[in-house]
This record gives sequence, structure tokens and C-alpha cells, in this order.
Amino acid sequence: MSAGVAARPTLGLLAHSGLYGLATDLYEITMAAAYLDAGLDVTVATFEMFVRDLPERRGYLVVAGLEQVVEYLRGLSFDGASIDHLRALPSMADVKPPVWERLRALRFTGDLWAIPEGTVAFANEPLLRVRAPIVEAQLVETFVLSTVNHQTAIATKAARVVEAAAGRGVIEFGARRAHGFDAAVFGARAAVIGGCIGTSNVLAGRAFGLDVYGTAAHSFTMAFTHETDAFAAFHRTFPRSSILLVDTYDTLEGVRRAVSVGPIRGVRLDSGDMLPLSREARRILDGAGQPRAIIVASGDLDEERVADLVAAGAPIDLFGVGTELITSRDAPALGGVYKLVAIDRGGEHRPVRKLSAGKATYPDAKQVLRAVDGDGRFAYDTLALADERVADGGASDVLDGRGEPLLVPVLRGGELVGELPALPAIRAHARAQRESLPLSVRRLRDPERYPVRISARLERLMTTMHPET
Amino acid sequence: MSAGVAARPTLGLLAHSGLYGLATDLYEITMAAAYLDAGLDVTVATFEMFVRDLPERRGYLVVAGLEQVVEYLRGLSFDGASIDHLRALPSMADVKPPVWERLRALRFTGDLWAIPEGTVAFANEPLLRVRAPIVEAQLVETFVLSTVNHQTAIATKAARVVEAAAGRGVIEFGARRAHGFDAAVFGARAAVIGGCIGTSNVLAGRAFGLDVYGTAAHSFTMAFTHETDAFAAFHRTFPRSSILLVDTYDTLEGVRRAVSVGPIRGVRLDSGDMLPLSREARRILDGAGQPRAIIVASGDLDEERVADLVAAGAPIDLFGVGTELITSRDAPALGGVYKLVAIDRGGEHRPVRKLSAGKATYPDAKQVLRAVDGDGRFAYDTLALADERVADGGASDVLDGRGEPLLVPVLRGGELVGELPALPAIRAHARAQRESLPLSVRRLRDPERYPVRISARLERLMTTMHPET
Repeated sequence: MSAGVAARPTLGLLAHSGLYGLATDLYEITMAAAYLDAGLDVTVATFEMFVRDLPERRGYLVVAGLEQVVEYLRGLSFDGASIDHLRALPSMADVKPPVWERLRALRFTGDLWAIPEGTVAFANEPLLRVRAPIVEAQLVETFVLSTVNHQTAIATKAARVVEAAAGRGVIEFGARRAHGFDAAVFGARAAVIGGCIGTSNVLAGRAFGLDVYGTAAHSFTMAFTHETDAFAAFHRTFPRSSILLVDTYDTLEGVRRAVSVGPIRGVRLDSGDMLPLSREARRILDGAGQPRAIIVASGDLDEERVADLVAAGAPIDLFGVGTELITSRDAPALGGVYKLVAIDRGGEHRPVRKLSAGKATYPDAKQVLRAVDGDGRFAYDTLALADERVADGGASDVLDGRGEPLLVPVLRGGELVGELPALPAIRAHARAQRESLPLSVRRLRDPERYPVRISARLERLMTTMHPET
Repeated sequence: MSAGVAARPTLGLLAHSGLYGLATDLYEITMAAAYLDAGLDVTVATFEMFVRDLPERRGYLVVAGLEQVVEYLRGLSFDGASIDHLRALPSMADVKPPVWERLRALRFTGDLWAIPEGTVAFANEPLLRVRAPIVEAQLVETFVLSTVNHQTAIATKAARVVEAAAGRGVIEFGARRAHGFDAAVFGARAAVIGGCIGTSNVLAGRAFGLDVYGTAAHSFTMAFTHETDAFAAFHRTFPRSSILLVDTYDTLEGVRRAVSVGPIRGVRLDSGDMLPLSREARRILDGAGQPRAIIVASGDLDEERVADLVAAGAPIDLFGVGTELITSRDAPALGGVYKLVAIDRGGEHRPVRKLSAGKATYPDAKQVLRAVDGDGRFAYDTLALADERVADGGASDVLDGRGEPLLVPVLRGGELVGELPALPAIRAHARAQRESLPLSVRRLRDPERYPVRISARLERLMTTMHPET
């Protein structure tokens, strides 16, 4: 550990794509060096990312993060300073110069297949597949996982909160509790994919074209001598869009003072018992001739509390959800893994699988086929080999063989196959996906396990493969 | 929500300090506009950040994140494009031009006091205090909170894992499960402050001068036809530093193959029952004449599992801890808040406090005084007013009035008071702090509550303050 780096700026770490190469775990670099030394440079590897088990309480995942993965893969390189940094690491003392030459020239030249953002997915289904020269395919593991694990966790959590809100708007409010400000920005993106109508995060709004929402804090009220003075001042500046925070002192007295300053856009409740408070606030607003003024609720909300308030008929129009959403607090780490499934070398294709206790994997490049029932609802998925059509001729079974393949090509030879969808389209897709789930899988509490079958050919491959030694 | 932003790079969002102004919640901007409109520009506000309750299971916090807060405050500004972006937001339609002029010129010109990084702290103690013109002091809330909440959560979790390891090294291994790669980098910094000896994260190593560690993945082994070929290849590239991952197929067979390739630095176990496996691995290593080869354990470890392995005498030399550490999984969101405590306007100083149900705050600028017993161990803290010396003349009580003030000046008028400590010094400070804690507070399981007293003057202020209306 070296001293005296305190004054160097570190925000915006990934400003230069020449640094993307260092955005990885050291073992990806040591493996790259050993692969190259061993002459495996021409070996082509296929890796897949998947989640072994769905997180606690979740019946499905909402996939997110692909756009940042693509940005990273297209920009991936090591600038000269990065190579110098690596060469100077003590553990790299024995690495030979050709390795550094190869890394200096490294770009991502492979293929990326992925399930599009906003799609729902399940355990053991590859969310993406990378096929590239092994050094490239291996190196990108860490960044790919951190990005997709994070955004998928947040999009999935958001979908649950939005589900609970049953049509009322949910705003992502959690920047202050995110894992740093970058996590807040990408988390806001994921939350909107999951169904939020917007975010409080201004930079996320700018970066991704999201709708941003903001009211005022208790400190605003406290900066004035009287609460009414604070409300009047805010209303003067925002005559058409004031949503006044009313619980700094006495919530219902606050509502009365809020309506006294003129026609307001609404009030926000941030503490206390939301059901009676929202009802009483509604009565005060209506009684003051402001039936169109809305009620926003915030403060330690999660999908359970939102569902309870909705079920009880609380007259709340918008929910601002912070900590629980932006950290996916009850399941804050999605356990996505990135595993080697096949090796191509010298014209030979070799499927591989890992057998470690509790960590076994399905071999070879795979595809997910989704069968839909007569009402357009998802019936089951089939985990199949990438090149197979399940039960191609099975016309007697409406479901079999009609599965839509979920993984689509995104990069081919390092180049974009087509334009990525814009965020509004991703969000609409996520909503349609959620609405196509069986209700038993979609529900918040004790969801059933969605059926994911293994194709006959994949089963056969697994039983015929000999454990490597 | 606008369409078609998909192709724009978003990694390295905070590359330009002109964007720092947007790294906030929208309500900080709406409040800024209303403050300025109301002529509160000259009002000076004092805000404090603190945590209401310690997270589950924690007996103390290890404070971290100050360096990034300072970087942000010193760089804070709005570039022209940021101002244009804000002006174009629908909710800002009524905001008058002078507000935008003021924001365009905004810099942080205030004072920052803070508890130095690595110091242990407790509930209700201000971790930092900002005193500045109210627009500046308010605006910085979101970034300050997201940064200090994140890094303090991770440093605190790391301290627990390091405590459990009882002198054996702990390496931060979690980038792939962090909330995006930036969270991984700043989380690695915090983990080292908390006591980790290093990280797997190469970019974090470069950004902060951390020691980086790396071995190999299962995919490396699987890329070769035989496990022994993989080990031999790795050993050729790293003859002096090979730590071979042995559990791809059969763990103990893997250890035997590892020692067969020559003298190795060690082996890594990543699955299975670590106690018998580590013992058997140790026997194989010793039996092969490699008593200096080390055993690294990883795979779903947390402080409980580490403590159990250490207590059972497992011959493990280094622990690689990933998901649980980098997300502080059992307590992934530190609930730090940033509250207005005083207003200065027209020569008048007015302490303020919020009274919302369950969210009441202590008024006025405060200091934390830490009393130490005869053995140098922390005895209790006193939450006092910033300008008071507790029991100044109380020479009869060794403890009272001898408390060391924890908050020190960091920025004065927006300028650094002195150089910030380098990371090795912060880490050493954190260790000394942990070792000064009462054992009952320091212990992993059911820690006792460390005593935090309220000074007589602060108590008096609270009882004499009338609720605002």
C-alpha cells in the first residue's frame, strides 16, 4: 500500500476508456498472462452469465445493465499508463514482454448475445453470452458481472414496488443511501426500467433522459421562522408545481397551512401513520377546494408497506421509495456468475462444465426458449443448446417447439449488430413482460417457481460428458 | 422521459467537476431556487450528518468517505450545459433568471468539520458538519450522504470481518457483486480502511495505492484439457507467486496436482467444507515439502464463518471475502441523515431542531468529546455544543472535561485547512481506534451499547427551545 495519494481526484474514475482495462479483478490479468504464455491466444472461449437461484422472495428477475456492458466492451483498452501500472505490480515481476504487448493492443473483438433489457428471466438462464478469444472473454468478467448484477437487482426490486403500487406512480428517491453516487445514477436507470415513473436524481435524469421529481426538505421549512412563511416562499417560486412537505412539526396542521398559501400541486407526507394521515390530508385538501392537489408519501417505504397502504385504500397518489429500492435492501447482492461453457481450439469444439460442490454448471452455449399459452401468457421456458430448436416438428403440441429465443445478438466481432433500444422502449417492454407472467409467479408474496425445463439434447450432453481431470 | 440516448457514453459520469452540481436530488435545486427568491442568499446554515441508530449487529461505525466529500466540495460547480439542462426541466419553468446566474457562479465557500476517516463513531454523533451560505450547504446533502453512507457501511463491515480473522489477512474480493464498478472501487478503499490488507480490484489499487491480490478462476483450469496442465501453465508464468485454485473438480486431488508442478506460493479453496479441507490440504502441502505454501479460503464467507473457522483452528492463512463485504449484505444501507441544526442571519444565531415523529434531532452545532480511561481505552463520549468544554473545571473527575474533540476543521472558506491523511495512515488509525474500544463494544456478537452522554448545556438548550410553528 503506497502513501500520499490523497490529493488526486478519483470521482469519474472511468472517464477514459483507456482505463477500462483496469476495471477488473487482478486474477483476470494473471490468467490473461498465463493464457498468452501458454499459447492459448487463439483459443476461443464461450462464457455465460446466469443466476443460480433467484433472490429471496423474488419470483422473477428484470434484466438490466446491458447498455453499460456494451459501452464498456466497445471502449475496452489499456492505455500506456495502465500497462506501466500493471508491469510495476510485484506479482507481475516474471511476466514476459510479449504479454504486455498483447494487452496494449487488446480490444474486444468477440460476439455478445444477451437477453434484452427489461425482459423477465429466471434461475439458470443465461442473461448474456460472450464468445471471444479467451483473453478477452475472460478479462471482461468482473465488469460485466458488477454491472448486470447491480442493475438487475435494482430493476427487479423496482418491479416489485411498482407491482405493489397497483397503478399509482412510484418515484426512485434513494440517492442518499445508494452505494455512492454512481450507484445512485445507474440504480435510478434500473429503477425506471423496473417501472418507476422517474427519479429524484438530477444527474441520472440528464444521463438517461429520465423524468425527475423534487419537492423540499424539512430543512427548508426550518430555515424560516414560521412554517407558513416557508410554504409561501416556496409557492412564490413554484406557483404551478409546489408539493409542500407538511410533517416538519404537526402534519395535519402543516396540510392546513399548505392550502392556505394558495392552489398547490400537492403535499408530501414523510413520517407517521400514513393511512389515517393521508385520509385526513385528503379531507383537508378537498375541504379547501383543492381536490386536484395530490398526496405524495415517502419515508421508509418498501413493497410490503406500499401494498398494505394500497389495499387499505389510502388516498396516496405517488410513492417516493428510497433506501429499500436503491439498495434492494432485502436482497442487496444479486449472485450472478460468469462461467466458461465451451472452448474452441484447432477446429475442435469442447463443451465444459464445472463440478465444484453446489456450484455445478450446464455445459455449452445455450439459448432460452419461452413458450406462451393461448392467452399470450408465459407458460414455461426451456434451457436448450444454442443451436437447437426444441421439438422442431412437434406440431401436435402447441407449446413445444414454439418457444421464442430470448438471447439475441448484440455485438458481432466487437461491432454493434443494431441500435440498442432507448429507455422508454425498455421500460414499456419490462411492463409488458411483467403483465405476461403467470399471476402465481408475479405476485409479491410467496411466488411460485416458474417452470424452466432442460431440453433433451442438453440433458443428453450432461450425461455423456466425462468429468475432466 | 426522452428517447434515443442509448449511444451516449455514461461510464465515468463525474469526469468533469462542472457536472458535480447535478450530482444531487432535484429538491436541493428547487430549494436553492426558493431560498434565493426569498432573499435567503445571505443566510448561513449549519447542517450535521449523523446516524440515528447503529446498523443491525454493529457496536460501532468506522467512518470513511471524507476524502471523496472533500474532492466533491472543492470541485463543485455547474457548467453551462448543466444550467441549460436545469432551465429546460418542466418544473423549473417559473424560476427567474437571477437564480440561474447565482447557480452558474456557485462554488462551495463554507466550512467543513469532520471526524477523521478511520475513527470509530456511534449513533447520534455528527460525522461531519457543514456551515455555509444556505444554498451551498443544502445543495451538497445528497452527494455527501451517498458517499459517507456507502464507505462507512463498508469500512464498518470490513472491520468486523478483520476482527473475526484475528490477525490473519482479509482481502476484499467482491467487485463482481458490488453496486456497479464505481461502488466496487470506493468500496475497496473503505474495506482497506476497515482493515483489509488489500483488494482484488485493479482500478482501486491504482486509484488509491492499495495492494492487489489475484489467483485464477475455475475457467482457467477448465480451459486446459487436464487440471495439471493448467497448474503447470500458470506456474510457468508465475514461478514465484502461483496461488492455485484447487476445487474445480476434486479439491484434495487438486492440492496434490498443485504441489506436483513445483514449489508454489499456495492454494485457494473456494467451495466445500473449509475446516476439514483446509486441514487435509495443509497435510498434503507439508507432506510435499512445501510448509511455506499458504492456504487461501474464499466463497460465501462473512464474519461469522470466518470467526468459526478461526475458532476451530482451520489452517487458513488468508481469507478472500466478497459479496458479504462489498455490499455489507446484512446491513446494506447505512441510514445517515443530514440535518439543519442552526441558522445565522442578520447577526442572530438560531439553533433549530426537527420534531417529526421518530425523527427528532439535537439542535445547534455540536462536538463529540471522547473520554479515555486510565488504560487508554475509550470510556464514553459526550455530545456537546460545538463551543463548549464539558465540565471545564471538573478536575475532581478524571474523565469529565478531558474528552478529546473528534470533529476537526477540514475546509475553511472552501479551502483545505491541511493535507488529508494518506490511506496507510487512515488504516493504522482505524486499527488503533478499534483496539481502544471496550471489548464488550468491539465484540462481533451482541455488542454492548457504547455510552454517549448528552452535555448539560445541550440538554438545557433542548428543554428551553420552543417548538417552531
